[in-house]
Amino acid sequence: MSAPDKLAWLDKVNWTTDGLVPVIAQEAGSGRVLMFAWMNREALQLTSETGHAVYWSRSRGRLWHKGEESGHVQHVHEIRLDCDEDVVLLTVEQVGGIACHTGRHNCFFQKLDQGNWVIDQPVLKDPKAIYHE
Amino acid sequence: MSAPDKLAWLDKVNWTTDGLVPVIAQEAGSGRVLMFAWMNREALQLTSETGHAVYWSRSRGRLWHKGEESGHVQHVHEIRLDCDEDVVLLTVEQVGGIACHTGRHNCFFQKLDQGNWVIDQPVLKDPKAIYHE
Repeated sequence: MSAPDKLAWLDKVNWTTDGLVPVIAQEAGSGRVLMFAWMNREALQLTSETGHAVYWSRSRGRLWHKGEESGHVQHVHEIRLDCDEDVVLLTVEQVGGIACHTGRHNCFFQKLDQGNWVIDQPVLKDPKAIYHE
Repeated sequence: MSAPDKLAWLDKVNWTTDGLVPVIAQEAGSGRVLMFAWMNREALQLTSETGHAVYWSRSRGRLWHKGEESGHVQHVHEIRLDCDEDVVLLTVEQVGGIACHTGRHNCFFQKLDQGNWVIDQPVLKDPKAIYHE
């Protein structure tokens, strides 16, 4: 008898033709949506195994260990899958309280207000200080 | 002088090559992530104008007024855009308390638990009663 495939759960995901799945990262406790990104199979496996969010950077074409430059690592509390099995929802603890590369708490800082996108979240840390220190 | 373009805010969105944008719907109050879907330009415009979430159904290739069959309309409180301007976050009030076509509160009812996807949310209403009444 062969051992049961410990990675069978990854086969349940309906990957895109590019081998990716969209991922929503939500902050544990506050419930705020921090960011949206993509994972490939390896990224999701690593996220589960390490407990740190690992995404697939489509722009850079490589694995992106969230926080690898900034230190703003995400500790993963929960990994969820939706009804169509083609979207992942992470519940995470955001180290540093900054998820966005602009230095803001989260990426959704533009709110539609009477036909205009208005920024309503402060920059908590200068990105230059985040990425070049 | 021509009137200012009241729909210029739609041009700020970085639509995919298919003319779509991914959308996260989050419940006002509870902060729970309800579902993930897509919008085209018309869907986002209608969502803003009507105050009800309108998505683009990729499987059906048409506009999808959320709740058109089920009655589970989403009243939109906020429309947000992320840092890369290619993801939309809605804050909504979910009529009927059911966002998922399976009859559950939300779509993310499968949780990864020791290598298995475990359902941890109850069906609140039989889908047959939702879609064929």
